[in-house]
Amino acid sequence: MAKVAEEKVAVSNIARWFAEIWGTFVLVIGLIGAALFASGFNAETNGVGLLGVAFAVGLAVLAAAYSVGGISGAHLNPAITIGMAVANRFSWKDVPGYLVSQVIGALLATTVLFAIASDGPDGFLVNAQAAGFASNGYDAGSPEGFGLLAVIITEVVFTAILVWVVLGTTDKASLASFAPLAIGLTLTVIHIVTIPVSNTSVNPARSLATAVYGGALPMSQLWVFIVAPLAGGIIAGLTYGKMFGRKAA
Amino acid sequence: MAKVAEEKVAVSNIARWFAEIWGTFVLVIGLIGAALFASGFNAETNGVGLLGVAFAVGLAVLAAAYSVGGISGAHLNPAITIGMAVANRFSWKDVPGYLVSQVIGALLATTVLFAIASDGPDGFLVNAQAAGFASNGYDAGSPEGFGLLAVIITEVVFTAILVWVVLGTTDKASLASFAPLAIGLTLTVIHIVTIPVSNTSVNPARSLATAVYGGALPMSQLWVFIVAPLAGGIIAGLTYGKMFGRKAA
Amino acid sequence: MAKVAEEKVAVSNIARWFAEIWGTFVLVIGLIGAALFASGFNAETNGVGLLGVAFAVGLAVLAAAYSVGGISGAHLNPAITIGMAVANRFSWKDVPGYLVSQVIGALLATTVLFAIASDGPDGFLVNAQAAGFASNGYDAGSPEGFGLLAVIITEVVFTAILVWVVLGTTDKASLASFAPLAIGLTLTVIHIVTIPVSNTSVNPARSLATAVYGGALPMSQLWVFIVAPLAGGIIAGLTYGKMFGRKAA
Amino acid sequence: MAKVAEEKVAVSNIARWFAEIWGTFVLVIGLIGAALFASGFNAETNGVGLLGVAFAVGLAVLAAAYSVGGISGAHLNPAITIGMAVANRFSWKDVPGYLVSQVIGALLATTVLFAIASDGPDGFLVNAQAAGFASNGYDAGSPEGFGLLAVIITEVVFTAILVWVVLGTTDKASLASFAPLAIGLTLTVIHIVTIPVSNTSVNPARSLATAVYGGALPMSQLWVFIVAPLAGGIIAGLTYGKMFGRKAA
Repeated sequence: MAKVAEEKVAVSNIARWFAEIWGTFVLVIGLIGAALFASGFNAETNGVGLLGVAFAVGLAVLAAAYSVGGISGAHLNPAITIGMAVANRFSWKDVPGYLVSQVIGALLATTVLFAIASDGPDGFLVNAQAAGFASNGYDAGSPEGFGLLAVIITEVVFTAILVWVVLGTTDKASLASFAPLAIGLTLTVIHIVTIPVSNTSVNPARSLATAVYGGALPMSQLWVFIVAPLAGGIIAGLTYGKMFGRKAA
Repeated sequence: MAKVAEEKVAVSNIARWFAEIWGTFVLVIGLIGAALFASGFNAETNGVGLLGVAFAVGLAVLAAAYSVGGISGAHLNPAITIGMAVANRFSWKDVPGYLVSQVIGALLATTVLFAIASDGPDGFLVNAQAAGFASNGYDAGSPEGFGLLAVIITEVVFTAILVWVVLGTTDKASLASFAPLAIGLTLTVIHIVTIPVSNTSVNPARSLATAVYGGALPMSQLWVFIVAPLAGGIIAGLTYGKMFGRKAA
Repeated sequence: MAKVAEEKVAVSNIARWFAEIWGTFVLVIGLIGAALFASGFNAETNGVGLLGVAFAVGLAVLAAAYSVGGISGAHLNPAITIGMAVANRFSWKDVPGYLVSQVIGALLATTVLFAIASDGPDGFLVNAQAAGFASNGYDAGSPEGFGLLAVIITEVVFTAILVWVVLGTTDKASLASFAPLAIGLTLTVIHIVTIPVSNTSVNPARSLATAVYGGALPMSQLWVFIVAPLAGGIIAGLTYGKMFGRKAA
Repeated sequence: MAKVAEEKVAVSNIARWFAEIWGTFVLVIGLIGAALFASGFNAETNGVGLLGVAFAVGLAVLAAAYSVGGISGAHLNPAITIGMAVANRFSWKDVPGYLVSQVIGALLATTVLFAIASDGPDGFLVNAQAAGFASNGYDAGSPEGFGLLAVIITEVVFTAILVWVVLGTTDKASLASFAPLAIGLTLTVIHIVTIPVSNTSVNPARSLATAVYGGALPMSQLWVFIVAPLAGGIIAGLTYGKMFGRKAA
């Protein structure tokens, strides 16, 4: 999304890192906040459910990307950063700073949510942690009990879709001004489809940030949600140019 | 949507076919993935239901069209390809390659979903197939038991609406940059209204890709969801110019 | 929305009338189709409910306005046509043709829905008509039993909001390319808030088209949904320029 | 959002105040109207619930900001006005007129809703007032019983997010034409996440306008929803430039 800036402004590395920290913070506080506080809210009179969680993350990314897309490109996700680098659309030397920033932003978000939950109604925090704090997982860790193979296929394929959309909508030949809208809403689709399977990662920073508050099970399964999304991002990065006949932008 | 490219890039036929395969893959994996995994998810605490499925397909098409609209026009649907050709807005010689690509993309999507479902909780795949794998149908194949005549009227009229919207929003005199948004959200409306009637086709590639995994009933009714959407697309293609006084773009 | 055309094309009156007929047809088939077929669909596993109906109408108008906004301005509603004329933003001599076209489009839509419902499951059409065919009403005709005064205030105020938004977003000083988006989603808000009160008119053509299939009660209350929306539109048209210091565009 | 005007028009202070009154009126009538009339509507067949309320406020702000963003900047919220002033993006001498206008608009909205509710079904108004008229609160005033500390953290953090998004999307280097979309949908995310905690303020004018009709409890807790959102806005205003290396626009 480097192209979403209408006016060229010199941007320091510090500003870019703050943009990634802040944007990933907004992504994770929207997504996990909705999952913890709202998805099961007042079920008799219609809580937000899975659909509300899916919109929360999509609209959070839409907003964050229109806010800081002109500064950092608004990756907000290690799989996107690495996929963009593989596709020669992002510099490898900038990768480490982005990944660290994304993890910091995601952890800040779950920490704020932990603090809010600590002053919730009786038992709220205990129950949220016992349920895994909205972590990702397979088998016993999957919302509907999908197995490891199903979860790996799901995370690889849907992360690849996400990264193809990022590469496609920010391509020179595309309407880049709509990229934050399209990318945010792609996340909404991905969450609608895959929350029942893996609780949806497609983003290792998001998975790490919930696993640290979710107990032993999510921590033991965390490797899947680092490896599979990165594999999906790499696949998209490797194939994008070949599939659509595009050179690096 | 040929006009959504901001910068003219020479696009090979291979790239266009990959764009149609990829985009139809995204459409069908979003739509049918939501229907299979999420629509009945955890009903007591609010699954995504019909509305979530309708948003999944609309937002998937929005995203795919902003991603590859500049490459292939992002038809992703034989009824759109043929309707555009009838309206003299697409070359007849390119029609066969597009139709084959759309069918391949749709089948790839249901095959990935079949693989994920195979590693789902006990009985998941068996139940999904017994329920028709989200296929289209009439009478016993209709979600609410609508008859053949109701289904034919529905599919013809709503496919015509879809193709009129495609022709209208990508018209020279329109704001083509908003076309992917408008077309995607048109699919959301169409699915909200017509899922109860026919489970919504308006796209023969989508119907074929689910019928092959859905058993004998959907296969025996598949002809309706090839003939009626194509008829709707042709009607729209024949009438668009006459209704709105427009020449071919 | 006269400004949404990027390229000036001579538009005949016939084309403008077809655009109003077609757009109002799309509005009403989306709104009333969702209300009849989908709102109570499969309630145990989450039908679309009120929210789905509200999105259906909003997204239908969004799509229709991006499709034919450059032809007719996409009023699709007598209250908008008259409000625009009162504000000197639309020619009075064009008003009668627009109103007739809007009524024709709305009646075509409910007639197609009536035909589909006729081939629905046992008792479907009878029940839909007994329930008023999604007509507007007060007292016994109001979904939640709101009285005549509540309904009149609601229809006047929310139609005025709609027409102010139309006047504001299509103003010379506004970003007119986003007008169809903003106007469509305004209808979504209006329907979310006011369906429980009056089943939401804000559009006399919509009210007439359902009342004719809804029996004696809606017909006897129809006058409210002609007078109140028109009053709201006129109030907005009279005050817009004064409130915001704008001249006619 | 001063930049959303495509054509420079001299705008009087009166016009700007009317724009803030009108826009805040639309925000509050959408949000509180949805909460009062629609959230618990016909729960058996799916009312709009929390998700519908969150979309109502987000889409209302989207529409209002595209309508009058070119006139007043469409703050519609004292926390935004003060945050913008702190960030040197809005003149301090204009602050009092904006705050007064926002409070007037919000009170007008709840007063119209009170009038409609007065002619509702038996007991409707009494119950709405007994339930606090959709006011904000903590402990007994919180929808799910969150405590004062949880509510303060929530309101400070999420108001800061809102004001950062406003500052970011209306920054010279951003795509300001998408600012109303991004800001409106940010409010949707914020409401999805925080309605269960505090019933969501992030806007002192909104809190005041409901508390006056909500009885003693909301009035006694109102100070929280003035202090915390303003603190969040000030934090965002103080840090925006430092975080992202931006000067005042």
